[in-house]
Formats: sequence, C-alpha cells, structure tokens
Amino acid sequence: MNLPRRRMFVNITPQVEDALRESGIREGLVLCNAMHITASVFINDDECGLHSDFEAFLERFAPEKPYEQYHHNGFEDNADAHLKRQIMGREVVVAVTNGRLDFGPWEQIFYYEFDGMRNKRLLIKIIGE
Amino acid sequence: MNLPRRRMFVNITPQVEDALRESGIREGLVLCNAMHITASVFINDDECGLHSDFEAFLERFAPEKPYEQYHHNGFEDNADAHLKRQIMGREVVVAVTNGRLDFGPWEQIFYYEFDGMRNKRLLIKIIGE
Amino acid sequence: MNLPRRRMFVNITPQVEDALRESGIREGLVLCNAMHITASVFINDDECGLHSDFEAFLERFAPEKPYEQYHHNGFEDNADAHLKRQIMGREVVVAVTNGRLDFGPWEQIFYYEFDGMRNKRLLIKIIGE
Repeated sequence: MNLPRRRMFVNITPQVEDALRESGIREGLVLCNAMHITASVFINDDECGLHSDFEAFLERFAPEKPYEQYHHNGFEDNADAHLKRQIMGREVVVAVTNGRLDFGPWEQIFYYEFDGMRNKRLLIKIIGE
Repeated sequence: MNLPRRRMFVNITPQVEDALRESGIREGLVLCNAMHITASVFINDDECGLHSDFEAFLERFAPEKPYEQYHHNGFEDNADAHLKRQIMGREVVVAVTNGRLDFGPWEQIFYYEFDGMRNKRLLIKIIGE
Repeated sequence: MNLPRRRMFVNITPQVEDALRESGIREGLVLCNAMHITASVFINDDECGLHSDFEAFLERFAPEKPYEQYHHNGFEDNADAHLKRQIMGREVVVAVTNGRLDFGPWEQIFYYEFDGMRNKRLLIKIIGE
C-alpha cells in the first residue's frame, strides 16, 4: 500500500475474502494485521460520517501537531500516528465458518493509515482446514 | 442477546467455558467476539466499582450526548457506541490448555453492550485438537 | 515477572522467539498475553522517546492519582492500571511463517506493566504445524 494522504481509511474486506477463497480453508481463523506500527487494522461500519468521527476523536486524544509535544519527534513527525494506532488496534482475528468470514451484518475490515505516502504492507494469515 | 439498557456488562465466562467443554478441544485457541459494531468483548476484573470506572472513563472520551456532535448521527444516535467499542476492543483470543481456558487469577470475559435494547449476537470459535 | 517499578516496558520479543524455536512450529499463530488485568502486551516500536509519549498519553486519560477518583479504589489503588491496560490491549496474535515471527521492519512485542512490584505471568501459546 502507498496511500496518497497522511491519514486514510481503506475497506480491505474484499482482499481478505479473496485470500480466504484462494486458501480453500473452510473452518479456522484469519489473522489480519498491519505490518507497520503507524497503521491499524480494525472492524467497524463502512460509513463515512463515522469515519470522520473517528478522525476527530483520535485528533482530540493524540493530536498530530504541534510536533514538539512528543519525545518521539526528535527525528520524526509521526508520534501521533503510533498513539492513534494503539487506540484503534493492530490486528483483527476473524472466524472462518463454511469457507466464509463469519461476520455480523455490518462488520467490515479496514486498514487505517496514520502516516501515509510511503510503502506499507498488510499481513493476512489463514489457518484451519 | 437483548439487554434491557443502552449500556451493560455481562460476564460471559461461563458460556465460553460451556462451549469449550462441548467442543472437546484440549489444546488450541478460543476466539470470542461481538458480531455487532456497537459492542465489545474484553477481559478484565469482575468488580462493579471497576465497571463504573469504565463507564465514566468512556463517557469522558466519547460522550453519548449531545447526539449532534457526531457526523454518524444524521440518522442514528449511536456514534458514541462505535467509538466506545473501539477503545474497549472487538474480540479476545484465549489459550486452551488441558481442556480449560488458560487464565490468570482474575481474568474474566465480558460482553459490553453500548447500544442495547435490540438483538445482538456473540461468536465463539474454538480451534485445536 | 516481578518488575521494580509501578510502570515499566519490557521488550519480550526474544522470549517469544525462543518459545517459537523450541516449539518447532513452522506455520501457524502465536498468542501472547498478560495473565494479569493490570498489564498489557502490545506491538510497537522499541524507542524510548515513544515510550515516554505512551506514558504521558496514558496518564492524561487515566491518571494514577488522586486515587479517590475511582470507585475501584475502595480497597485498591490500581484502577488506573486497569484502564491503561484496556487502552493498550491485553494480547497480540502474530503470524508464524517459515518458523519465524512474520513481522514488519519495526514490530517488537512489549510487556507493559501498570502495577508492578508483584509477581506477574505472561502466556505464550503457539499453534500450527
């Protein structure tokens, strides 16, 4: 992934579903996590109003600026991204039942970038039979 | 689940233990998650003072009212529930050892409802042998 | 674990790698969690500036003192530790690929103690083949 903005939501449910289909696994677990420490994978609703509420909420508790408020920002400017990712979480674990993601009605998997405009990777690991 | 209040804690450890016993699995992992995006499953202490501290803590950071403070609340009134669930987490993964939940002395599993008075579901997935 | 201060970070990546090597498992999942409800296991960067940013961040949202602000503190003084652990998370699940922790460039596993100077335990469970 290389996203064009510092912060951005990407609905990755289709990619996880594709990976599950290719695996052929019918019963088990899917782990999906960001491989970088300034991004989150989480499950919530695909609703843009809610996403701007998340943005406002995270900026209130771990504001990006002023950069000097953070010790981590001696050489970097992304301390806020590390804190935001911690609130939203690194990973999700999802049940696989009958070959499908065992989801409730509104569950969708998102990648949430907090320090974009650089290459990032996502891990999808599927175990079961 | 259909809980009588907007917000409520339910200790679901006995249900998870029952599911584990029925599965016959001796070594593996249990995933337990809310299937709805306005509820959490988390592990902490079964102590009512602590639960009211969680309530106060979450209301401070993602207050229910005024409803208009959230973009998500154009047609809904539960944006705070989505944010609260994100702080508390969606799921827990617990080790199974010798057929039992491999818990420390005070670990208990809770379902935490943030938008009750409607039908909700909980998922328990057990893998192993 | 018995750490000499109330709050402290310990990089436990080497211990988890040792446990993985001993298990002989090549493909699967590692679960690593605190067995106590006043400590976290999380994944982030091993950078001491960032760690002091986490400290400041958590103290802002769940301050240790005054102790009387928390209902849980009738007989205890550690309500803040329960809240801090909830923000930072209980557990991590990490993919195992080719016998190694399948990590991005900066991912490191930490034990974060919020109520130290007493015996605590950590659980590492590895499943796979």
